[in-house]
Amino acid sequence: MITIGVIGCGYWGPNLIRNFAENERAQLRWICDTDERRLNAIGRRFPAARTAADYRQLLADPELAAVVIATPVATHYRFAKDAILAGKHVLIEKPFTTNSREARELVELAEGRGLTLMVDHTFVYTGAVRRIKEIVESGELGELLYFDSVRINLGLFQRDINVVWDLAPHDLSIMDYLVARDAVALTATGSCHVEAGIENIAYVMLRFADSFIAHFHFNWLSPVKIRRTLIAGSRKMIVYDDIEPTEKVRVYDKGVTANRIESDSDKEAAYQTLVSYRTGDVWVPKLDSTEALTHVSAEFLDAIANKRAPLTDGVAGLRVVRLLEAAQESIDQGGKLIEL
Amino acid sequence: MITIGVIGCGYWGPNLIRNFAENERAQLRWICDTDERRLNAIGRRFPAARTAADYRQLLADPELAAVVIATPVATHYRFAKDAILAGKHVLIEKPFTTNSREARELVELAEGRGLTLMVDHTFVYTGAVRRIKEIVESGELGELLYFDSVRINLGLFQRDINVVWDLAPHDLSIMDYLVARDAVALTATGSCHVEAGIENIAYVMLRFADSFIAHFHFNWLSPVKIRRTLIAGSRKMIVYDDIEPTEKVRVYDKGVTANRIESDSDKEAAYQTLVSYRTGDVWVPKLDSTEALTHVSAEFLDAIANKRAPLTDGVAGLRVVRLLEAAQESIDQGGKLIEL
Amino acid sequence: MITIGVIGCGYWGPNLIRNFAENERAQLRWICDTDERRLNAIGRRFPAARTAADYRQLLADPELAAVVIATPVATHYRFAKDAILAGKHVLIEKPFTTNSREARELVELAEGRGLTLMVDHTFVYTGAVRRIKEIVESGELGELLYFDSVRINLGLFQRDINVVWDLAPHDLSIMDYLVARDAVALTATGSCHVEAGIENIAYVMLRFADSFIAHFHFNWLSPVKIRRTLIAGSRKMIVYDDIEPTEKVRVYDKGVTANRIESDSDKEAAYQTLVSYRTGDVWVPKLDSTEALTHVSAEFLDAIANKRAPLTDGVAGLRVVRLLEAAQESIDQGGKLIEL
Amino acid sequence: MITIGVIGCGYWGPNLIRNFAENERAQLRWICDTDERRLNAIGRRFPAARTAADYRQLLADPELAAVVIATPVATHYRFAKDAILAGKHVLIEKPFTTNSREARELVELAEGRGLTLMVDHTFVYTGAVRRIKEIVESGELGELLYFDSVRINLGLFQRDINVVWDLAPHDLSIMDYLVARDAVALTATGSCHVEAGIENIAYVMLRFADSFIAHFHFNWLSPVKIRRTLIAGSRKMIVYDDIEPTEKVRVYDKGVTANRIESDSDKEAAYQTLVSYRTGDVWVPKLDSTEALTHVSAEFLDAIANKRAPLTDGVAGLRVVRLLEAAQESIDQGGKLIEL
Repeated sequence: MITIGVIGCGYWGPNLIRNFAENERAQLRWICDTDERRLNAIGRRFPAARTAADYRQLLADPELAAVVIATPVATHYRFAKDAILAGKHVLIEKPFTTNSREARELVELAEGRGLTLMVDHTFVYTGAVRRIKEIVESGELGELLYFDSVRINLGLFQRDINVVWDLAPHDLSIMDYLVARDAVALTATGSCHVEAGIENIAYVMLRFADSFIAHFHFNWLSPVKIRRTLIAGSRKMIVYDDIEPTEKVRVYDKGVTANRIESDSDKEAAYQTLVSYRTGDVWVPKLDSTEALTHVSAEFLDAIANKRAPLTDGVAGLRVVRLLEAAQESIDQGGKLIEL
Repeated sequence: MITIGVIGCGYWGPNLIRNFAENERAQLRWICDTDERRLNAIGRRFPAARTAADYRQLLADPELAAVVIATPVATHYRFAKDAILAGKHVLIEKPFTTNSREARELVELAEGRGLTLMVDHTFVYTGAVRRIKEIVESGELGELLYFDSVRINLGLFQRDINVVWDLAPHDLSIMDYLVARDAVALTATGSCHVEAGIENIAYVMLRFADSFIAHFHFNWLSPVKIRRTLIAGSRKMIVYDDIEPTEKVRVYDKGVTANRIESDSDKEAAYQTLVSYRTGDVWVPKLDSTEALTHVSAEFLDAIANKRAPLTDGVAGLRVVRLLEAAQESIDQGGKLIEL
Repeated sequence: MITIGVIGCGYWGPNLIRNFAENERAQLRWICDTDERRLNAIGRRFPAARTAADYRQLLADPELAAVVIATPVATHYRFAKDAILAGKHVLIEKPFTTNSREARELVELAEGRGLTLMVDHTFVYTGAVRRIKEIVESGELGELLYFDSVRINLGLFQRDINVVWDLAPHDLSIMDYLVARDAVALTATGSCHVEAGIENIAYVMLRFADSFIAHFHFNWLSPVKIRRTLIAGSRKMIVYDDIEPTEKVRVYDKGVTANRIESDSDKEAAYQTLVSYRTGDVWVPKLDSTEALTHVSAEFLDAIANKRAPLTDGVAGLRVVRLLEAAQESIDQGGKLIEL
Repeated sequence: MITIGVIGCGYWGPNLIRNFAENERAQLRWICDTDERRLNAIGRRFPAARTAADYRQLLADPELAAVVIATPVATHYRFAKDAILAGKHVLIEKPFTTNSREARELVELAEGRGLTLMVDHTFVYTGAVRRIKEIVESGELGELLYFDSVRINLGLFQRDINVVWDLAPHDLSIMDYLVARDAVALTATGSCHVEAGIENIAYVMLRFADSFIAHFHFNWLSPVKIRRTLIAGSRKMIVYDDIEPTEKVRVYDKGVTANRIESDSDKEAAYQTLVSYRTGDVWVPKLDSTEALTHVSAEFLDAIANKRAPLTDGVAGLRVVRLLEAAQESIDQGGKLIEL
């Protein structure tokens, strides 16, 4: 049994609390929030857990093995650092930190102490993304060509962070997991239509060492809700539509091939190219519908128990923060190319 | 009756021929193509027209008032220049020319001779785009915030031009017509997955003097066909989905407002912002379903008859070519920002 | 304050309990279920209410004004009759009773005692159906022509009732409310593919005194989920698609008119008919998104307070039961026409 | 080379003419229409064919092997009978005849003379329906449970026939081909909203010897266009959506099973039923996109050449006419059950 303390009972915290409370490898030991009313309400639902207004009470408890941090991003670094220094394993909400320096320091601190540091990149644990990962790894897509993601809605405007820091952690972590390659450069553009200084629309483009590219559209001010990702391979292509209630993943047996053919009729231009198209069946695999957080909590507990790196460890969190930071830098400089 | 000669009987030419043949203000006098079999086939369908393999036969005919050029883009400049120098009015397929220098020269030549020079930006003449234009001009969208366009498909690969020169003339001319503003800077990125040197996917971003932005996704290698444009205003927003058989235009009574409110409780942070959302009815206006080319041919004939500039004149063609050229330049330089 | 006791804490009961608990005109006084574990669980969430395993405890409480019955349909008649005889107002789940004789008796008993008797035809209280009712009553649809409803899914098989008694109360009550006319005859056909004696697919057709007809498709064994109703008028038509997350109601300005024209050319066949089509805008009205049960509970409380008949009173419940009964009779007799 | 004469150059005739003209096993020898202008127009497109205003000219030509009849249904019987008596093979448009007596007589006449008699049930020859047939015949659907078809639109009103005779031949012939079983009884209901005596909406229900049922909704007065058929089997189910541009057929690996389990705990009620659901992948097979009429003309020619019955022979046409006739009879008698 791994003892767990959850810091932050706002929007996402209660979901984490519920999932750890239901996992038989965990013992929910502490619930913490500075808002007393919120703390009491959630405390009543989990009477076996202790409540605290100050997270330092949790860190001082020698019986507590791990903390889960679900507070605003600005507090992540301090809470996580204190927790690691107190010898606790840490699961932290995304985005991991507000900059890559903080992220790097946390990764190094946890490594130095042999503690598990995991970032809750929830989408990575959905049935859809895990199924796509299997398909990508099977090689049936062929060579990956591009990743194109659109996540737009008439969304809740955040007051402390812009649309990139709000929405991009989802798609960047999905891409990081599925593609498993590092971008070499990034450009991003955004615009502020509602509040000065807070971008509500942004486009991010990642370049890689070869012709693979990744592009993202984030938007809080769209009349329609779209959450769709295209993952194109040289042999097959996937459309991942997260709005679809059940048929979220579609695998298209479609492709284009350029065949270079020696031409008899022209010795100088010895090669001609023939582009041939292929359109076959579409396949909609059934997905595991387990709640993603069930897998998140299980992964955290298993990583602690087996002293192994979790799937979305601090290093994965750092990679995503590095991209967020670069996107912000590019936006601030009017779309400048940022080398990564 | 304005006498018309059409040069080029490939994919698009026969549609132009048919529309001019059916317009009672026009007399289809010449049909021209270097491919004899194609020329004969189309000639049989329009027995009243003369046929020619060499376009110079048309230019030498003093009875011919106007030529329509529907040939590959590389030939546009030469054919149009010769036609203008021969005193003919000119309607030319998009993209207008392969670079802005040629476009500018043609505009000046035609102006100097008092001849009508028009570019066939067909989409501008569709019922959908003309209806959107009316809505934009009525002011009911409020201030325009952004324009986001996606035109992707598993498309026919062109051998002589890339996806930008193939698809972007559609969306850039639509935006040019609807927004009626000049961009100040552009970035574009593309990638070649099938043939070296011919981009099959590209993203183009336009910046304007204020916070308005326009973004475009062009793609020949998508598993799904999408042709959708978002035109967001501060009061209402439009989704233009060209795949929809009849309900192509949807007007959303949706918006977000930032209200700055003086806070009594806090003298230092004297102003707080309150973001309020508004969601109302959706309205799907009925559209004129007349074939766009019927309006194109009528506009060309009417501009000639009334010695006025057509809606999509050479200057509009030049603006679009300037953007295509800048997009290519940005792509070639790895996404560099191009000042316009 | 009207005191409320809810009998039955299964699937639907907790929703009713929550809505009455939140209504300031009501005081949730009793919760009743024979399953002790279920009763205790719900009791903890509403500590101000008393709990009982036997519904007769509620009826014996002189302070209790009204009971809400959310138990299996087979028990409705007995529980409701006992409650009315004990002087309680009654809100009862649909289907009201298992046959029209029971329904009629309950209506008469409640009338005789001046008690409110209401059936929870929930869909009647949704934002979508109330908006459609306004449109129908405004007259803008013209004369109503037909009502066509499809409610199919790979659904939960019920063990005690068939697909008609499970699903038809929804659509029959919606039709009863919107059309406000009585059918004169009914035919129905069904089939049992999974369990003998329990139809999992059924079609019901209602005839009215004129050319208006209503047709229903109910199905527990469909690969796709469809909940769509067409309500056609002579001037406009409505599509009500309950699967759509927000755009559930679409009003089509479409119609067909038969114009009888006197023909000059033929004196014998003096009249010719010219059918003319009309296709105009589509309009998607914004809907009230309040939970339907909030309106249900408010309607029940207001009807009691003002001693008026509720919108979906026992007579409405009786009308729906009469149709269910006739549908079953027709199915059992192989699609025989049942006069109503 | 089989010589072909086509009678009727209205809506469908030109498509038949073109397909026979393009088939190398056929020689288009005659084109016939009473409307001279129409005849001349189509004659110019096929200069190798002779033209006739009177179909008897074709029948008198000893070099002519086969006639294709694409005239209004009221003329089918007479034209076909004369053709058969003149020794010609016959391909005839659907609906085959206006009643089953005529259909039976034509079948017998053709049989007696060893002539090919085929009905153009075009949909049977589409890539979608042929692919579904393969799936049905492979047995992977398990036992067929029901067939549910909806074909509705704001359609062209016919003046001589009602919606059943206009639309039902499509779906009845598809069902006849796919299910390959004879119904034992039929009920149908319709209503006339535009013109007295001409039903514009109709529902048809077929009963079979076991629990398999088939239901059809035909409608000329729907605000939306739907052409969708559900074909449910005990193991898998198909949705055939003819509106979809490419993904017309979807195979759902879904089902419900009733498992009868002996219960230890209750000797009296010795068997309990456990309904178990299964939801798996969805598969969208690629379809042959050849024009259906190419297969129709090839089948006719091959049947003649090999003296074999065509896939949709006169007997198939008779089966469909028998159902149309019964549907009309049931409608006329207010939904009466008709034994077949």
